[in-house]
Amino acid sequence: MKKMRILSVIDSMKGSLTSIEANAIISEVFSDEIFSVTELAIADGGEGTVAAFLQNCATEEKLAKVSDLAGREMLAHYAWLEKEKLAVIESANTAGIHLLTDNNISHPRQTSTIGVGQTIQVALSNQAKKIIIGLGGTGTIDGGIGAMSALGVAFFDVEGKLLEPIGNSLGSICTISYDNVDPRIRDVEFILASDVDSFLTGEAGAVQMFGKQKGLKDSDMNQYEADMLSYHKTLTSSCENVAGDGAAGGLGIGLRVLLQAEMVSGIDLLAQYFQLLDQIAQADLIFTGEGKLDSQSLKGKVPVGISRLAQKKDVPVIAFVGSFEGESRQYEEVGIHAVVPMITKVCTLEQALSDAVKNLTQAANTVKNILVLNKGSNA
Amino acid sequence: MKKMRILSVIDSMKGSLTSIEANAIISEVFSDEIFSVTELAIADGGEGTVAAFLQNCATEEKLAKVSDLAGREMLAHYAWLEKEKLAVIESANTAGIHLLTDNNISHPRQTSTIGVGQTIQVALSNQAKKIIIGLGGTGTIDGGIGAMSALGVAFFDVEGKLLEPIGNSLGSICTISYDNVDPRIRDVEFILASDVDSFLTGEAGAVQMFGKQKGLKDSDMNQYEADMLSYHKTLTSSCENVAGDGAAGGLGIGLRVLLQAEMVSGIDLLAQYFQLLDQIAQADLIFTGEGKLDSQSLKGKVPVGISRLAQKKDVPVIAFVGSFEGESRQYEEVGIHAVVPMITKVCTLEQALSDAVKNLTQAANTVKNILVLNKGSNA
Repeated sequence: MKKMRILSVIDSMKGSLTSIEANAIISEVFSDEIFSVTELAIADGGEGTVAAFLQNCATEEKLAKVSDLAGREMLAHYAWLEKEKLAVIESANTAGIHLLTDNNISHPRQTSTIGVGQTIQVALSNQAKKIIIGLGGTGTIDGGIGAMSALGVAFFDVEGKLLEPIGNSLGSICTISYDNVDPRIRDVEFILASDVDSFLTGEAGAVQMFGKQKGLKDSDMNQYEADMLSYHKTLTSSCENVAGDGAAGGLGIGLRVLLQAEMVSGIDLLAQYFQLLDQIAQADLIFTGEGKLDSQSLKGKVPVGISRLAQKKDVPVIAFVGSFEGESRQYEEVGIHAVVPMITKVCTLEQALSDAVKNLTQAANTVKNILVLNKGSNA
Repeated sequence: MKKMRILSVIDSMKGSLTSIEANAIISEVFSDEIFSVTELAIADGGEGTVAAFLQNCATEEKLAKVSDLAGREMLAHYAWLEKEKLAVIESANTAGIHLLTDNNISHPRQTSTIGVGQTIQVALSNQAKKIIIGLGGTGTIDGGIGAMSALGVAFFDVEGKLLEPIGNSLGSICTISYDNVDPRIRDVEFILASDVDSFLTGEAGAVQMFGKQKGLKDSDMNQYEADMLSYHKTLTSSCENVAGDGAAGGLGIGLRVLLQAEMVSGIDLLAQYFQLLDQIAQADLIFTGEGKLDSQSLKGKVPVGISRLAQKKDVPVIAFVGSFEGESRQYEEVGIHAVVPMITKVCTLEQALSDAVKNLTQAANTVKNILVLNKGSNA
């Protein structure tokens, strides 16, 4: 009997599983005489973007000594494709929210994306011709001033005092100097890759939408939003609300303005680099998934990005999700044939996260057993 | 194409769906050009036992004016099979925990199974030759003294004072008089049907295992257990721990001793009456389920009772469950091929219960879409 070929392309699930770990669980459960599994690490620009390039493309891992979001020295990694002089950097690697613990500075006012800029500098020194910067998963809301400052931009307050490039400075920025910007950035093609169409300000903005999960309290919101608006006005006279500007706590707008970079969908970009459409065409069934499938997922997150490609090749998709909201019909329309929640009982978020390996294993077994059942009944 | 024949035999899910409602959701989702659904209401002796007989056997519904667990007048229903002079009564109908609300007497000390005994009396007056009493789902822990008292048993304290047949009297019972017991009980065959092998006392007993969900506080436990032990000793000199005696808050032991009744597995008994094995043999796939699948389920609850029968006919079983604990392998061994949790996200028990219709619909759609997928890929 011909084996059923499964392509497993599950996104990382924040706080529990990386893409590589999730795909490995699928492989462990399914690989047998009936199914074969191809694992493909994936990301949307956020955490795991570099790891996905390292697993799927002929890239090498490079290290850079930089500062993390709390100013501590760390070794960042990025992916390097020598023949294209391409560097792939992710903001989550140096400014990731996972780098903060209860004992550290967790308030977005105190954190910075400086490490992202420093990693870009290292790539520039390595003669990069093209740099992809994955945005997302940061514990920062600094409007990108940390990264910009690492590349030579200076921010001053009303009295002309140089400001520290952390979230807390946003509301005080009065003038911005580009005099000492690293000139090498003009010879390089930059691509910014992010997940959803997040805006800098407003209800779907970097402060109001993501502030709470980064440590802001309700009482901080109004002032932080006002500071961000003030910064927006100083940075761009137009104050236009551009999709993607709010990604990674406003790192989107900072890098877009400074690098004159194109903003693209992370999943679409990675799909192209990883020749996902070809891989889909060779599969009988696609597994994808993410921590949370909801209305946001319909706008450019991993599962829907993949299911839209799978629709083109008429290959069915099953999505394993930590949490599911909405009508399954919505997802069927974009090519996700079945949504399988991994949670098995009433529990806290902490329990659900710590049970992720067990729960994904269980959910995968359930799907496998249903698929096998039917094969049996047709035989 | 020949349709895939599904037999849906889902148990009620306490606090959310009756068996009939759950099967109706399956029928609604699956009935189409590919699948046909046969709905079979089921129960384990607890809530829904009478409704299942009414739906599946040629029984008629009879009404009896009795007292509920809090002493309020109510109309109980039971199922009547004229040709066998068989009455089917369930304890949950008159003493069910669902009859209590926050405004009512909810403490097991104040409640009584008197209505169960009164319903038995009405069936006796109706010339019953055989009476099945389904045990389970009560809000009482009265050791069955309520039901016994309705049939003529009297309980006295150390001073010879007649005691009220409620949970609170258990510890005070010194002598028991059978002088005025209804003599008709000697001419009738009684069968007690319950779910698990619950004991009257001890860790798996009526007080310690089920007391909390009936309203007992931690601080009540020791005294209540002591009262139950005292009652046990007065009722049966042997004090033997018999399986099933703890069912329905000890109604098991009261009726077993008074009626010299046989104690059987509810699901096995109903399966026999409903010719479940024949119905399974005519299906390609069985759906079952219950609110909670856990280690208790392996001892005589509905899904495992059904899967053991399905194993005999080599028909696969999928179980939809509100909550799932344990390893799916355990359930595969007893013939449940796939366990499908209905919950879709981190939430409270209240939310999970109130979302039950939506969640079962969603889970059924997921299973259907996976089954259909595979049919497609084989075509």
